[in-house]
Amino acid sequence: MGTTKLMLRVDFGPNRALGPGKIRLLEAIDRTGSISQAGRALGMSYRRAWLLIDDLNRCFREPVLAAQPGGARGGGAELTAFGRKLVRDYRAIEIEATAATQTRLRAIAASLRPARSLSADKVNRLPIARGGKR
Amino acid sequence: MGTTKLMLRVDFGPNRALGPGKIRLLEAIDRTGSISQAGRALGMSYRRAWLLIDDLNRCFREPVLAAQPGGARGGGAELTAFGRKLVRDYRAIEIEATAATQTRLRAIAASLRPARSLSADKVNRLPIARGGKR
Repeated sequence: MGTTKLMLRVDFGPNRALGPGKIRLLEAIDRTGSISQAGRALGMSYRRAWLLIDDLNRCFREPVLAAQPGGARGGGAELTAFGRKLVRDYRAIEIEATAATQTRLRAIAASLRPARSLSADKVNRLPIARGGKR
Repeated sequence: MGTTKLMLRVDFGPNRALGPGKIRLLEAIDRTGSISQAGRALGMSYRRAWLLIDDLNRCFREPVLAAQPGGARGGGAELTAFGRKLVRDYRAIEIEATAATQTRLRAIAASLRPARSLSADKVNRLPIARGGKR
């Protein structure tokens, strides 16, 4: 299927969702042990990273991060057991959803234009755009 | 699971994706027979609707809409067989992916705070925000 893949967002109603951005951030915090380093690794401001974590903590009953009080330079950040479970569940949902829809994803991927022809297509007009009622 | 649901985007690589917005637009065009009416029904400008359709037509080898040359007021817009198949495939992917991940979605939904407590939570601070290294 080349680069075709399923991106998932779990929607919990108004203003509450869990998608790839938050999951990648949690994974980066798990790797780096710090919100600011994780943000940097993802090209995200500290403020942005913090707001995403804040969103998650408002969303769920348990916090996703635990403060780690540390030595002279202060503590870092660490995923809670719940935070780790959330990442695991999301990644498992991705794998299961992709496996379950493989055949249809392949069918859609087979209808794609080759990516290379995109810039040449830029000069073309949409058939629907010529005349007719809007 | 209350309002918890899976939102899907099929990613085809850089700048090419198929998600709920484009699918809803195609469905509205199928219902109304016009891009502008469909856009209005979804609170979307004609320009925005047109750009989404243009995106789809650049993305796939076959067009998703056929111009319908019509009487005195001009023609409307109609989904092609390919456009209809795309909508059907996307909606089927949604159903299959949701069915395959039901158990994990339920587990995540069970960890949510009740939606009502959200505004009260607004006054709380994140545990991680107090002191510590950023």
